[in-house]
Amino acid sequence: EPGSVWLAGAGPGDPGLLTLLAAKALGEADAIVHDALVGGDILEAANPDALLVDMGKRAGHPSPKQEAINARLVELAREGRRVLRLKGGDPFVFGRGGEECLALAEAEIPFRVVPGVTAGIGGLAYAGIPVTHRGFGTTATFVTGHDKTGGLPADLDWDVLARMPGALVFYMALGTIGTIAERLEAAGKPPMTPVAIVSSASTEAQSVIETNLAHCARDVVRLQAKRPAIVVVGEVVRLRALIGAWQQTTGQNPFPTAVSA
Amino acid sequence: EPGSVWLAGAGPGDPGLLTLLAAKALGEADAIVHDALVGGDILEAANPDALLVDMGKRAGHPSPKQEAINARLVELAREGRRVLRLKGGDPFVFGRGGEECLALAEAEIPFRVVPGVTAGIGGLAYAGIPVTHRGFGTTATFVTGHDKTGGLPADLDWDVLARMPGALVFYMALGTIGTIAERLEAAGKPPMTPVAIVSSASTEAQSVIETNLAHCARDVVRLQAKRPAIVVVGEVVRLRALIGAWQQTTGQNPFPTAVSA
Repeated sequence: EPGSVWLAGAGPGDPGLLTLLAAKALGEADAIVHDALVGGDILEAANPDALLVDMGKRAGHPSPKQEAINARLVELAREGRRVLRLKGGDPFVFGRGGEECLALAEAEIPFRVVPGVTAGIGGLAYAGIPVTHRGFGTTATFVTGHDKTGGLPADLDWDVLARMPGALVFYMALGTIGTIAERLEAAGKPPMTPVAIVSSASTEAQSVIETNLAHCARDVVRLQAKRPAIVVVGEVVRLRALIGAWQQTTGQNPFPTAVSA
Repeated sequence: EPGSVWLAGAGPGDPGLLTLLAAKALGEADAIVHDALVGGDILEAANPDALLVDMGKRAGHPSPKQEAINARLVELAREGRRVLRLKGGDPFVFGRGGEECLALAEAEIPFRVVPGVTAGIGGLAYAGIPVTHRGFGTTATFVTGHDKTGGLPADLDWDVLARMPGALVFYMALGTIGTIAERLEAAGKPPMTPVAIVSSASTEAQSVIETNLAHCARDVVRLQAKRPAIVVVGEVVRLRALIGAWQQTTGQNPFPTAVSA
């Protein structure tokens, strides 16, 4: 309905990982407010008559403040548009979607949340890494690599993180990976614990660095890891040798892809 | 290509949360091996000529062993079929997808993994609960509620879990919720910590119980919580009053849904 907002996740990058609901909204919205993590190949599928509003960070310019995004969503909805707020990954996984919902609720704008595939699960899968695997720990822990200060969140207890049995998945952590590795090691995590850094997960530009806690900070610099990146720490990274290699060398496309073909 | 397997997640329930790739595969596969978590409204979209193989649990019958599922996938692929292995949620989030990949790799069957929306993120979103929210902790932790013994995993350190700052999300935990609550309380988690139990998330049968650690075990019995269910422990549950209420009462469908309409 006009005057409402859909807050949808676009997935980690591959347009084929859009949900049916997100794809539908993309084709029907009057205004699409997206961030820098939503790729051009996804926006190509947008309703050609829609107003496209880029709320992403741009080189050399500070990113718009969350309040400005909230205000823009309210404004567009009040103009009677059918608004799609499209975010990379899932809106509720370190995506500040909750804040946008609260702003819409406060402004009495009807909204709906459409979840998406998050990079810390789906992006890793494209790199051949299962975020959980039987025998490799019964948990998966997602952590944001920076908070509002731009540094690591102050509420993180590294002794606790180091003792989680399953994978640790850090979002937006390329700038803080050295500190992450140092603190996990200091908390007793073995230096040889496998680490993977997956850049531009699930896109044609995807690249993966396999390393370990002791060397990951050096390797990020040496191999010039690109943003956006997901950092995963844990034994599940070892499965990439079996799952990722096989996935990549054979049978990538038993079916034609839906959008990107 | 014939003789290959796509291992895809079907999302938490709403057919609109299928990815474009999963929906495409559903329409084109020659054989579809699904589990009990994949709903009939999703299977309705399957290629009418496809062989449907139900590998789910049924009342009164033990569920097929993982080895039997692996063997069936290999067999169908060797018959030259285009096989879709469709699992509820995401194949790598407590879905044993990794084991199926390893079995296929060992048998030299080409495969591809298509991630899906996991219930612990997308299912909670349909209940109005953001799995992360700024100011409510910088982590989200996913835990399987039972391991191969059917009880809680032995490697869980409850002191560690109780000290994670963000939400704790338990999968398949209805049978063990009493023990979970007891151990978290014993480890110092306040008894009034909010808990939500979301059953049949994102389907028409979705129901939500809002309670707390002290009362959740009693409420699961008293209110007859249904399987499948996701249990979430943490302050983010409080946001449901604002996000969920508003979501439910207004603007549910600004766009027609793609599949279920």
